[in-house]
Amino acid sequence: MKKIVECVPNFSEGRDKDKIEAIAGAFRGKEGVKLLDYSADRDHNRMVVTAVGEPEALKAAVVEAIGVAVEVIDLRVHTGEHPRIGAADVVPFIPVRGVTMEEAVELSKDVAREVAQRYGLPVYLYERSASAPHRTNLADVRKGQFEGLADKMLTPEWKPDFGPDSPHPTAGAAVIGARMYLIAYNVNLNTDRLDIAKAIARRIRHSNGGLRYCKAMGVDLAEKGIAQVSMNLTDYTQTAIYQAQEMVRMEAARYGVTIAGGELIGLMPLGALVDTAAYYLGLEDFDESRILESHLME
Amino acid sequence: MKKIVECVPNFSEGRDKDKIEAIAGAFRGKEGVKLLDYSADRDHNRMVVTAVGEPEALKAAVVEAIGVAVEVIDLRVHTGEHPRIGAADVVPFIPVRGVTMEEAVELSKDVAREVAQRYGLPVYLYERSASAPHRTNLADVRKGQFEGLADKMLTPEWKPDFGPDSPHPTAGAAVIGARMYLIAYNVNLNTDRLDIAKAIARRIRHSNGGLRYCKAMGVDLAEKGIAQVSMNLTDYTQTAIYQAQEMVRMEAARYGVTIAGGELIGLMPLGALVDTAAYYLGLEDFDESRILESHLME
Repeated sequence: MKKIVECVPNFSEGRDKDKIEAIAGAFRGKEGVKLLDYSADRDHNRMVVTAVGEPEALKAAVVEAIGVAVEVIDLRVHTGEHPRIGAADVVPFIPVRGVTMEEAVELSKDVAREVAQRYGLPVYLYERSASAPHRTNLADVRKGQFEGLADKMLTPEWKPDFGPDSPHPTAGAAVIGARMYLIAYNVNLNTDRLDIAKAIARRIRHSNGGLRYCKAMGVDLAEKGIAQVSMNLTDYTQTAIYQAQEMVRMEAARYGVTIAGGELIGLMPLGALVDTAAYYLGLEDFDESRILESHLME
Repeated sequence: MKKIVECVPNFSEGRDKDKIEAIAGAFRGKEGVKLLDYSADRDHNRMVVTAVGEPEALKAAVVEAIGVAVEVIDLRVHTGEHPRIGAADVVPFIPVRGVTMEEAVELSKDVAREVAQRYGLPVYLYERSASAPHRTNLADVRKGQFEGLADKMLTPEWKPDFGPDSPHPTAGAAVIGARMYLIAYNVNLNTDRLDIAKAIARRIRHSNGGLRYCKAMGVDLAEKGIAQVSMNLTDYTQTAIYQAQEMVRMEAARYGVTIAGGELIGLMPLGALVDTAAYYLGLEDFDESRILESHLME
């Protein structure tokens, strides 16, 4: 089985078409790498690339893309609504297929080491790759943004994991690490009462005692005239989609509310689908290898 | 997206290891073809190969394998429990990915034409490729077996679709065609009463007024102490797995019986899994393209 990793790097350029294409171009025409999607936002002045590939091939493409970003983006003149600390702002690696989290962590460290060395870029490791608990959350690492980076780096807590002890003059710093695949999954309720959606969200999410890898909030879908429980499942191998749905159903029942349907934002890995189907069909000994197409991807 | 077809040819050799390997070998080391499985049965004196691949590449491998079978198998001295009409007894093509049934039918006819010409083999088209209703079912085409073939071929109803009007002296005839992917899916009941499993099977199967693409029978799983509804779903794109399960649940309820679990025999296509998950999660606009891995197979 071919090993597959996903990378969803965010770059601080959402306006200049030539620069956007130059960065995305690093993921094109590379054996073993597939550019799934890229999109740029003018207001955020930021672009997000989604690429998958075999670890070594993907690593090379990401290193190249970061090099292009360092070359073409100048944070000193960068404005936009989205917080950012550098040109290659955040670079998460996500294990997809035949790859352990440990391998994804190693891959992220290899990339961090290489871009620090090659481009003189300070790099912070975050999420599962973090070298200390206070560096786990992106928001903490990015706090103060590019403008506050030079001062922040003077403190020992924010000495970078790789690279120089001061910001790259135009490209700031990069935040690189490995994390689990995040599934954005929403459940629509047969009610327009936002308070009910919020109450359900509080019951099912980790922060209030609910499912460990579930973040949730109540959302008012005014146009549709319904309320929604909007969720991020941050580790679908531990907290499955069907658990999230059934927990919503269970909590909704106390208000006499039923589920109107579900909604997946973006993509989900085959493993998440397999789990869910296995639960509802009561299948034992069922895994990805029972899906015909999984044998076409070796 | 790469087009993928499956072929599950049955050859009349299940004892001679060299011959078995020679036939299976036609599917090895071919660009665009993947040998998923092959197994031989001594009692049946028969082997079944499961291969997938791009249409043209798979076609070439199948033609080659039939050639090997014609060369190494002699039906005049063949004994076994399984009915058979020829060395390459039955050769079904199944659309898997990006391929219509019409294309699979054309592919089966191409193979039929080529093996008839190249090996002097009479070929009957069956299932979706059949040239007349009485040739649709394999059992009808194979009736009389190799031993009765010469007489059968004297009647105009059994003039072959391709090749000579009399049997190949040692290889008989071949039955080739296209059919849908068949999902073998069983539902275990929380009862040991075979009569209940049989009654449920009668209600849900097509032959008695049930689901159009569902064959079903009641089975006694004596070792497990339970009864089972054993099903073949002959077109999962029309009759979905979740429909079959929910119909079993509905019928079981009248006997106060619940479902103990499900069982998938062999593999199922991703599309069947997507259908089932979409139903239970109430997802709209959900298809294979929402599965990350489906983008790795282009």
